Amino acid sequence: MKALLLIAHGSRQHAANEEVQRLTARLRARANDRFGHVSCAFLQFVEPTLTEGIEACVGLGATHVTLLPYFLAAGQYLAVEIPRTVAARQKAHPDVTIRIAPHVGATPGLADLLLEMAAAV
Amino acid sequence: MKALLLIAHGSRQHAANEEVQRLTARLRARANDRFGHVSCAFLQFVEPTLTEGIEACVGLGATHVTLLPYFLAAGQYLAVEIPRTVAARQKAHPDVTIRIAPHVGATPGLADLLLEMAAAV
Repeated sequence: MKALLLIAHGSRQHAANEEVQRLTARLRARANDRFGHVSCAFLQFVEPTLTEGIEACVGLGATHVTLLPYFLAAGQYLAVEIPRTVAARQKAHPDVTIRIAPHVGATPGLADLLLEMAAAV
Repeated sequence: MKALLLIAHGSRQHAANEEVQRLTARLRARANDRFGHVSCAFLQFVEPTLTEGIEACVGLGATHVTLLPYFLAAGQYLAVEIPRTVAARQKAHPDVTIRIAPHVGATPGLADLLLEMAAAV
């Protein structure tokens, strides 16, 4: 089973975390047969943590876990913290494939999507 | 002439601002006939400011300026600061139409784009 885990920074503002949870629900509803499980995890302020999120996917029987960093810009989290946590979980679960997708800001096709949307405003 | 102005928060980390500038260049290259001018503006740390960015568009002859907030989550900037600046510029240029597009996190089609990208990783 393939799992998708959206990773957000987490915010002290409840509304921002709720936006992440709403997007997670949208991803889940539209995943079809691409992902058997879709959830989210947070790096600060909110649970589940990234470690907890990965463990939950593995506990549900995921053989592949794809992490989707919900960040517009690269930075310490993407360069250091997420890879470090992933390396530890990968070591704990050598039979599970854990991959990190490009962050949102680096998603191919984002420019076209934004242009299309902005032109329709 | 229609102008597109990407609005980013701005960062003390140079690399993050460069990512915004690269996306702006990508938007410009792909705008075709949808926008005659594409640039970016920042709310903190980096210039041009939002006011300067709007003024530059108007100075170049824009009759429509579409602001595209490069934010994943709504918050004070989207709710208060951007609309306040826009209202002041709109008052200064009553013949120019200034519109604010949904922020990136609220872009229709984002979930599908992310699912497609994550499934290909």
